Amino acid sequence: MRVQTVAFLVLGLSLSFAQAPDDSKPASSNVRGSQYPRVYPDGRAVFRLKAPNAQKVQVQAGTPDGMGGGPFDMQKGADGFWTVVTPKAVSGFHYYWFLVDGLNVNDPGSDTFFGYTRQTSGIEIPGPDDAFHMPQAVPHGQVRQHWYLSKVTGAWRRAMVYLPPGYDTSKAKYPVFYLQHGAGEDEIGWTKQGHANFILDNLIAAKKAVPMIVVMDCGYATKVGSTANVFAEVFLSDILPSVETTFRVRADQAHRAMAGLSMGGSQTMQIAPVNLDKFAYIGAFSGGASRTFDPKTANNGAFADAAAFNKKVKLLWMSAGSAETNQYENAKVTTAALNQAGIKAGFYVSEGTAHEWHTWRRALHEFAPLLFR
Amino acid sequence: MRVQTVAFLVLGLSLSFAQAPDDSKPASSNVRGSQYPRVYPDGRAVFRLKAPNAQKVQVQAGTPDGMGGGPFDMQKGADGFWTVVTPKAVSGFHYYWFLVDGLNVNDPGSDTFFGYTRQTSGIEIPGPDDAFHMPQAVPHGQVRQHWYLSKVTGAWRRAMVYLPPGYDTSKAKYPVFYLQHGAGEDEIGWTKQGHANFILDNLIAAKKAVPMIVVMDCGYATKVGSTANVFAEVFLSDILPSVETTFRVRADQAHRAMAGLSMGGSQTMQIAPVNLDKFAYIGAFSGGASRTFDPKTANNGAFADAAAFNKKVKLLWMSAGSAETNQYENAKVTTAALNQAGIKAGFYVSEGTAHEWHTWRRALHEFAPLLFR
Repeated sequence: MRVQTVAFLVLGLSLSFAQAPDDSKPASSNVRGSQYPRVYPDGRAVFRLKAPNAQKVQVQAGTPDGMGGGPFDMQKGADGFWTVVTPKAVSGFHYYWFLVDGLNVNDPGSDTFFGYTRQTSGIEIPGPDDAFHMPQAVPHGQVRQHWYLSKVTGAWRRAMVYLPPGYDTSKAKYPVFYLQHGAGEDEIGWTKQGHANFILDNLIAAKKAVPMIVVMDCGYATKVGSTANVFAEVFLSDILPSVETTFRVRADQAHRAMAGLSMGGSQTMQIAPVNLDKFAYIGAFSGGASRTFDPKTANNGAFADAAAFNKKVKLLWMSAGSAETNQYENAKVTTAALNQAGIKAGFYVSEGTAHEWHTWRRALHEFAPLLFR
Repeated sequence: MRVQTVAFLVLGLSLSFAQAPDDSKPASSNVRGSQYPRVYPDGRAVFRLKAPNAQKVQVQAGTPDGMGGGPFDMQKGADGFWTVVTPKAVSGFHYYWFLVDGLNVNDPGSDTFFGYTRQTSGIEIPGPDDAFHMPQAVPHGQVRQHWYLSKVTGAWRRAMVYLPPGYDTSKAKYPVFYLQHGAGEDEIGWTKQGHANFILDNLIAAKKAVPMIVVMDCGYATKVGSTANVFAEVFLSDILPSVETTFRVRADQAHRAMAGLSMGGSQTMQIAPVNLDKFAYIGAFSGGASRTFDPKTANNGAFADAAAFNKKVKLLWMSAGSAETNQYENAKVTTAALNQAGIKAGFYVSEGTAHEWHTWRRALHEFAPLLFR
């Protein structure tokens, strides 16, 4: 009896140790089977890394505002594992990495996400409004890898193209929404970090958005021997024609929209307002706005004649997270100046979120229903 | 004159320094704009990492045979950069990582590739036979992300599905080739590391393969509360029905093929030979074979009746790289035993390559032309 009791206690201890007897769960952004990082229901996260030879290990969030600050010092255990529980984070997706004696190191437990012009770790913190960007039991569109040879750069490029449910069996032509990522990211961001395909699936199923094609391309392009970004030229000369000859699209101004986040918002504001023969809907999420925006002179005078602008443009729309001070003020000032000049500009604020992907998921979720009406 | 000459010399020196005055080039597997790692025409590579606080830094290849050995010690420069030139590598794709004071660290200059159940760095070493797996000026199929809810696991899963050129505009039904990755990898491997889409594009354009759909799914699946891999059940109960209700397929035995690499080869040999009502073509690349294979008893007797087997199966085919001793011997012994038992089994050897992706690119390039003839 005595031996059995001891054995039971030892087993019980080792089980509770292995099973982490609390209400934290592995992050949904982890690789298959990885138990760390873990997330508590209140938004705290547990990070862990085995680095027995390291002197100092920290967790660094790409956007500290979203993760409650940092970098966070981790504590070393006798087993060589460094751990830390971080403060309550804002819900949504956060880039992060370890600093191991000052070196940026990806978390082997996390999937990688392209940001900061490198593949980096990321953590999904669940929140109360996640249903809109998660897969639901509704018809699903498909995201296709569309390869095309750029005449501008001479290089093969890849666009990610969302085709709405029903595209395969329909003969209809669809409107097209061109949607760009931010600086340091790529054509994968809007689906992998942003869940744009699920957001559209859910909106279309609820009849809150019309079925549309969403084209997500890479906002970087260089010619051989140059480092200048010629994305605008590639976009107009390669991407648009390639999409319009490959897919069943309504290839006219009234059925083209362009938007982007951060750098992609700036690119949208550089391209669309001076190509109003091509675009009727324009969106700039957390970018493309300025505290010194002057409708009379901005974008080579594209906004100077409000009546002419309003005649062509069905929607000009900006957004920002309330926690991204700079972009919020920029968008607020810019849309106010536009409205004062007689150009109706929409403005949406994502409450509590910073310059990160949950802000842009929400922006897409608000913007897409306004398109092609 | 004198001042100008000096300025010219200084400028010349700094330019030559920045441009790495040799014939190495950034690896095609690098992230956008990254200058390192670099590859020489003879297959040597230069790796570089800034880690000023590290005591020891090495480069470790996932498959040392492919990279000429290792781990390779790197040398620290006064600028905090560690560098090494590695020996001539076998051409193709190689997983690798840095060992920084013993810690596995991804190279920020490399894209990441899912292997070893984590995201890891990889380097593409060009070779003389690369044209077959690179994008060419031929019609391109599209790889789609196909999401479906698994009834077996209750989880949303994603298959990568290659649709051949012409699928959108044709009304034809297509044969389907189910193609599985190896252990520690996922549904992305066959396109990202394997370039399966370009291999098929090129074969179809040359009329060396018939237009077909290629389904690449994840070879791992677990039910809630269990760690057992129930892929076979998911494959037959979820994947096949989902593909056959979503795409225009010829849903009969004569138009289904299954193959896989390494673990995927084992899964193919476990599933297909005991489901000959469903599959007419079976391929096992660097896996699924054994030195003790006995046709009389293997796979619950699926090979015991050679005449019955031959009546149903149009192709049984195995392959291995000549540099992967174990898998090569396994496939050689297994196909010899099958042939001796009266079952015609094909055997292809990729010359000089190890247990890595270039072996499997070549296997796919040899196998696909044999399908659906």
